[in-house]
Amino acid sequence: MHLVAALDRLPSMRCVLGLFEGVVTGAADGYARMAEKPACTLLHLGPGLANGLANLHNANRAGVPMVNLVGQHATYHLRHDPPLASDIEAIARPFSKWVRTCCSALETGNDAADAVIAARTAPGRIATLILPADAAWSEGGIDSPLPAMPHAPVPAPETIARTAGMLRSGLRTALLLNGNSLHGRGLRAAASIAAATNAKLLAPYPFTRIERGASRPNVERLAYIFEQAAEQLKEFRQIILVGAAAPISYFAAPGKNSVPMPPDCEICALCTPQEDCVYALEALSDALSIRGTQPLAEQPSSPALPVGDISLSGLARAVSALLPENAIVVDESMTSGREMMPATKGAAPHDWLANTGGSIGIALPLAVGAAIACPQRKVLCLSADGSGMYTAQALWSMAREGLNVTTVIFANRVYGVLKREFSYLGIGDPGPTARNLFEISRPDLDWVSLSKSMGVPGTKVASLEQFTKALRQGFESAGPSLIEVPL
Amino acid sequence: MHLVAALDRLPSMRCVLGLFEGVVTGAADGYARMAEKPACTLLHLGPGLANGLANLHNANRAGVPMVNLVGQHATYHLRHDPPLASDIEAIARPFSKWVRTCCSALETGNDAADAVIAARTAPGRIATLILPADAAWSEGGIDSPLPAMPHAPVPAPETIARTAGMLRSGLRTALLLNGNSLHGRGLRAAASIAAATNAKLLAPYPFTRIERGASRPNVERLAYIFEQAAEQLKEFRQIILVGAAAPISYFAAPGKNSVPMPPDCEICALCTPQEDCVYALEALSDALSIRGTQPLAEQPSSPALPVGDISLSGLARAVSALLPENAIVVDESMTSGREMMPATKGAAPHDWLANTGGSIGIALPLAVGAAIACPQRKVLCLSADGSGMYTAQALWSMAREGLNVTTVIFANRVYGVLKREFSYLGIGDPGPTARNLFEISRPDLDWVSLSKSMGVPGTKVASLEQFTKALRQGFESAGPSLIEVPL
Repeated sequence: MHLVAALDRLPSMRCVLGLFEGVVTGAADGYARMAEKPACTLLHLGPGLANGLANLHNANRAGVPMVNLVGQHATYHLRHDPPLASDIEAIARPFSKWVRTCCSALETGNDAADAVIAARTAPGRIATLILPADAAWSEGGIDSPLPAMPHAPVPAPETIARTAGMLRSGLRTALLLNGNSLHGRGLRAAASIAAATNAKLLAPYPFTRIERGASRPNVERLAYIFEQAAEQLKEFRQIILVGAAAPISYFAAPGKNSVPMPPDCEICALCTPQEDCVYALEALSDALSIRGTQPLAEQPSSPALPVGDISLSGLARAVSALLPENAIVVDESMTSGREMMPATKGAAPHDWLANTGGSIGIALPLAVGAAIACPQRKVLCLSADGSGMYTAQALWSMAREGLNVTTVIFANRVYGVLKREFSYLGIGDPGPTARNLFEISRPDLDWVSLSKSMGVPGTKVASLEQFTKALRQGFESAGPSLIEVPL
Repeated sequence: MHLVAALDRLPSMRCVLGLFEGVVTGAADGYARMAEKPACTLLHLGPGLANGLANLHNANRAGVPMVNLVGQHATYHLRHDPPLASDIEAIARPFSKWVRTCCSALETGNDAADAVIAARTAPGRIATLILPADAAWSEGGIDSPLPAMPHAPVPAPETIARTAGMLRSGLRTALLLNGNSLHGRGLRAAASIAAATNAKLLAPYPFTRIERGASRPNVERLAYIFEQAAEQLKEFRQIILVGAAAPISYFAAPGKNSVPMPPDCEICALCTPQEDCVYALEALSDALSIRGTQPLAEQPSSPALPVGDISLSGLARAVSALLPENAIVVDESMTSGREMMPATKGAAPHDWLANTGGSIGIALPLAVGAAIACPQRKVLCLSADGSGMYTAQALWSMAREGLNVTTVIFANRVYGVLKREFSYLGIGDPGPTARNLFEISRPDLDWVSLSKSMGVPGTKVASLEQFTKALRQGFESAGPSLIEVPL
């Protein structure tokens, strides 16, 4: 509470209220991905932190920076074990790379500075600082100047040289990019290398942010479905990891392989996620003497506006045709949106943000944070209905902050990915009980009412014409809107 | 998935889908409080468990039994560190009294039986069993017979005798009851003791379940507000704890006391929460030679139906007048509902369920579980708007399962408890930034639309006449309904 009171003395800090902590941590993730600096969450004791953990999982997996401030009871009150007491450090640790509890008012400034430094350690970390009430309200606090930001270590020259040798070998090679090698200087360097060496640029299925669209380099995302990923990878004899982990199937299945690469494929890391990937790619360009090679750019493509009955490919074409210049697409469209990325590769230049850890319920919060980071840009939020229901409270924050987010709900009334996993495991057809646990119908969710209840105007569309009209209106109007697409 | 498939071969197990895991764990809590046996949750990997933790905190604090089954990757897949991997045991441990990971198919039956035994160890425990996919799909599973349920230990005869001596001393004495001493045989024994010895029956602010109303013993709940609790306790020279912890303030405040009891008050435990409180109370009755003493019963009171403008006391009188016989009241009405319990002490006999750990967002899920446990009874769910937004997805489960739950939303558009804590700490008036973080207005939530979106008919009332009409309709109709009360 003393920290909340102090916020009124810090007008430079923008405070955004969420109705649920999963909205808050997901929004902090979206903010950091676009602003390239951490946001700070304020969470209340163990349960408040617990409610934010699922989206912390996603950010933690992806190396997105975040500072969590978690309020704790006064130190002397904890021995009474009051109802809200819990072991906050233990709750934070599985989802944080840095955890500390302030000991006294004297240390709070220093601890907060350390938390920021920890969060900004490459590629980005979840730093959780626990603040006992008496550390906040006691006398003796001092300002602590923020030390210089840490520099990420760079890979050894031998690693650069070895990677250059791989690219000169003539063997079919892919660069698997992640983190900041998927946008800005990193991506430009990677694309020059690809153009000069005929290597292919790949992104893992769970990636943080890709700059893509017309005039941008083409990066192919590995598929969620194992057999499709294996098909994408089968031509390669060498895979160079740039801040990425080696590809792996999302889940295991009895008698099936977990590793999609061909057995004779050599895998080497140019740089780990903790190293400076931009430096590594530029050093690799120099080693190959190809700095300045023009990257291959995606050609603009502008599909005709689709008409007729709603189809997944029609929805994807409509998005591709109407996406505004410099839009941000947040994608948790799950099974319904598999055609979206291929269809939009020649759309107006944009950023694409994905679910990075598989914990569903990230899209709407992520859109909140991205829109706050980039108030001049339009955000398109693609969400499945099942995942959207996890953190639908984000709609209220969109309305309250007047955020330029157009949310599209793919309402197929089913946890499609569960149905698919069930059948993939070869257990047979689900019986009525299992089906009942996969289907989110009876009753159907009414997303227009849900959206209205939180102050976001919504519309339900019955044809591709209606969809394109609603999408255009969403992009053209200020503030949030929602489109329910029954499938 | 193999476990899900097996559910179709177990028709005796009722499967209820939640749209968010916090609904699932809260419903399991409500089920166990009313059915007096654990429910089983099925959660998906670390993030699925994480989403259920806040309501696990509440159940864990209260000693409510629960078995959580958490799906895990196949053991051999974990070494690849797939996106959804996390340390599930570490996530479970702060909120579980028992955690285990199955090692193989051979052990699953035995592990599941051990989890049930752990959950049913007095007073009730959170038992979390982690089930790797290959332990579920491999051959070799065997049925494991459920061993006999554990008996709770009983307090030593000297403890009974010392407590009897305290009650005979003539000093003003209170029995602070919790767990199963607040209903059934335990409460009857406690009430007989109170009638024979002039002791007072108290319940802690965070209690699990009280049987109360006309013809039932009166148990006074300690107030949330520290000064009020201190006032309630000041007359007592002795407090006997029956499965309860010594009273403590929810939060500390600078320069204020945390302990509401008078300094000269002696506090002794008749039994710990882990001991058999019903045995202890009946043994105490025997030691006092008062078995069969008629407990003092609350007189029925039937207030006239209130009319006119909405007021908190009018709402409380309406609930008292209309509450159906044998109803279950789930109460997370927070600052708006402080008059509800006093007003209903002479209402038709009913059970009252409270938030036990201070993690908000329990009411709607708890109502789901209570209604499933007691399909013949009416459930009244009293929820603040701020806490209701945490787990509003429970409305959909109410609609899908056709549960007899009437939900009343106290829509004061503010986190009232935060405003109150802020002023209690003596920081002054909140500035505009702090106020913005306490107020859940701009836009106002439209609970009727929200409810409709999930298939629950709702109505917004503007007078006490409209409230009583809607409440009566809710109680008389089958299935769920919602009443939004703007305050």
